[in-house]
Amino acid sequence: MNKIEHIGIAVKSLETSIPLYEALLNTPCYKTEEVTTEKVRTAFFAVGESKIELLESTDPQGVIARYIEKKGEGMHHIAFAVEDIYAEMERLRAAGFELLNPEPKPGADNKLVCFLHPKGTTGVLVELCMEVKRETSEVRREM
Amino acid sequence: MNKIEHIGIAVKSLETSIPLYEALLNTPCYKTEEVTTEKVRTAFFAVGESKIELLESTDPQGVIARYIEKKGEGMHHIAFAVEDIYAEMERLRAAGFELLNPEPKPGADNKLVCFLHPKGTTGVLVELCMEVKRETSEVRREM
Repeated sequence: MNKIEHIGIAVKSLETSIPLYEALLNTPCYKTEEVTTEKVRTAFFAVGESKIELLESTDPQGVIARYIEKKGEGMHHIAFAVEDIYAEMERLRAAGFELLNPEPKPGADNKLVCFLHPKGTTGVLVELCMEVKRETSEVRREM
Repeated sequence: MNKIEHIGIAVKSLETSIPLYEALLNTPCYKTEEVTTEKVRTAFFAVGESKIELLESTDPQGVIARYIEKKGEGMHHIAFAVEDIYAEMERLRAAGFELLNPEPKPGADNKLVCFLHPKGTTGVLVELCMEVKRETSEVRREM
């Protein structure tokens, strides 16, 4: 794991939480993004090499809405940046950790992600995420 | 806030959780420390510029024991490194955040710390921490 990529925080409302975190962290929200597959709207703040990611549900049946209903607002997951998500998933699977998705899936912020089952990580929902490098199809030829 | 200093994770047992996090993070626990004032034993892992801090209660009535009884094991707090904790506490107080301790207090890892009330931070227990620089009383004299 190279670094803490972000901490995901479940909130009821981005509208009220964005100014609150701007005041708390003393830094502006630099991006918001909707991840339709996860039924969330997200807001990002930079802190050192990491980010704070606020998560608001777009659906009353979504995972974040259900989390808040059960546990209230608060820290939802911790995401670690990895160099090679395929190798890291294989390493963790071999070490006995349970992966919630057997293949990497697209996450917010142009990442490939994988979640680990919190029952195997002392109740902490752990996300691995790998930056997706844009491939170039340009072919250079010697003239 | 300069960076995420650490994520505090409440666990029932360091004995079982240290090898688990060593496997998860693929890095050795580099230090354990008891903080008697907080009734916890802590274990540290380095991840990039941040740390993971496991917290085990040394007392069944301690804050971590009661947290686990109520919410189960899991993420307990997020700590941000600050340059000047006095200035940051003043800034946050003026912005309407409630400080749980009105003066900085000693924390693990040679830090001065202050906690913010989670009711004002969407349920997240936020810690500020400042590295304590060892003062020197040495007086140099020109001979």
